[in-house]
Amino acid sequence: MTGLEKRIRQSFDRQSMMATYGARLRSIAPGKVEIEAPILPGSLQQQGFGHAALTFGIGDSAAGYSALSVMPEEREVVTAEIKINLLAPARGDLLIARGQVVKPGKRLVVVMSQVYAVTEGVETQVALLTGTMVPVPV
Amino acid sequence: MTGLEKRIRQSFDRQSMMATYGARLRSIAPGKVEIEAPILPGSLQQQGFGHAALTFGIGDSAAGYSALSVMPEEREVVTAEIKINLLAPARGDLLIARGQVVKPGKRLVVVMSQVYAVTEGVETQVALLTGTMVPVPV
Amino acid sequence: MTGLEKRIRQSFDRQSMMATYGARLRSIAPGKVEIEAPILPGSLQQQGFGHAALTFGIGDSAAGYSALSVMPEEREVVTAEIKINLLAPARGDLLIARGQVVKPGKRLVVVMSQVYAVTEGVETQVALLTGTMVPVPV
Amino acid sequence: MTGLEKRIRQSFDRQSMMATYGARLRSIAPGKVEIEAPILPGSLQQQGFGHAALTFGIGDSAAGYSALSVMPEEREVVTAEIKINLLAPARGDLLIARGQVVKPGKRLVVVMSQVYAVTEGVETQVALLTGTMVPVPV
Repeated sequence: MTGLEKRIRQSFDRQSMMATYGARLRSIAPGKVEIEAPILPGSLQQQGFGHAALTFGIGDSAAGYSALSVMPEEREVVTAEIKINLLAPARGDLLIARGQVVKPGKRLVVVMSQVYAVTEGVETQVALLTGTMVPVPV
Repeated sequence: MTGLEKRIRQSFDRQSMMATYGARLRSIAPGKVEIEAPILPGSLQQQGFGHAALTFGIGDSAAGYSALSVMPEEREVVTAEIKINLLAPARGDLLIARGQVVKPGKRLVVVMSQVYAVTEGVETQVALLTGTMVPVPV
Repeated sequence: MTGLEKRIRQSFDRQSMMATYGARLRSIAPGKVEIEAPILPGSLQQQGFGHAALTFGIGDSAAGYSALSVMPEEREVVTAEIKINLLAPARGDLLIARGQVVKPGKRLVVVMSQVYAVTEGVETQVALLTGTMVPVPV
Repeated sequence: MTGLEKRIRQSFDRQSMMATYGARLRSIAPGKVEIEAPILPGSLQQQGFGHAALTFGIGDSAAGYSALSVMPEEREVVTAEIKINLLAPARGDLLIARGQVVKPGKRLVVVMSQVYAVTEGVETQVALLTGTMVPVPV
């Protein structure tokens, strides 16, 4: 496990919301991080699909960690703002959020995240997020 | 309980994510809905504050129900898009999301939500959300 | 003219786009700035209404100057991000953008702007903007 | 010239703001439209770079026409909402906005636009936009 991976896994493990969602880090690469989560019985909206807060939560975290992956050590990132466009209902077995850095920077990192629902191995994009992450001291 | 209140409470109760968050409807009025949630041990981000997904989740729902409150009966609303600007860490005993309709419409309802953290009775705004809700058949 | 007003007027006058739009500063107060612009023959979209870029442009500037109005001297602000929700067609004699600070900060200032179209003295809100401004050295 | 191209060119030509900007349609394909504009002396912000309203205006139009390009005939599109993240100052000879459809739909079309500044043939991305377009009758 590289230093980068360790740093991100430790931060992820401190997020109790990710445990509540049953989410896990799926892959970590410089500028690109994937998080997946099952659509648990306790994560639904009123029509029985995955809740937008779940889609948002893993999309935001994947985007945030993609930003963290291009930072010098001993930094955390916090979300300044993020917009989510919901494209389709989050139905299926699993959600996968793929975060990436759009534009790195010392004071601000612009990020994007695409979230997919997986049903029997077929992926459907359910959301697009764009946001701004701010590095802060650990 | 008015028909409006009943309709919103029934929809809210179908959102299992709201139960996971320990959230509850705080007030319902035409064009204005409030939701509150404690900052549970399972709702935290990596620094120990309330997770952005919690802030987003109750902010989005309060905004969505404010839109639903101005719809004719037998409609649901879904979020087309919503942006959250995070203003301060979500620390304290409780979060309160205050949703309101900015512009009603047949096909789109523009909404806003302000989320506050409450510590010993003092409110601090932690987020501002603006979004677009779409009416759909029940 | 106060130092604050002078600073904002000088910055405004350097924006040649504001002259192209025929825009002018309408009022300046700490945390609140108004800009107005006529709907010129050269500022239209395809249906003959004021173009979203005009609405955006004066909304963004009013928001930016509201941020500048709460900064120490010798700073400029640049827009990191801004979202516009368009509420109604920009038709009428004049647009007025009312910008305000939502949350000041050393590194980021969260702002809002509401844009109104005026027809024979009656105002209709045509847009809501929320954004993030970043202070930079002059 | 195909029917699609004709339809988009006619709509574009009705936007007097595009003429004010000196903008022109650069390419049209199903789901992808490019618009370019010089950085005119009358299109500047206070630091002498291209104004965010110019970047926004051509980014919004490129995104809107990418949506129109996947519509049945006899429709127009209007912008419901759009967010712009500004990545770098708009400096150079020319701006190019590349719009694309993210998710088509009967009632809403989700779009994205990337805007580049070109200096001596080298492109730098200056903005990322994501938005929602709504089809309306002509």
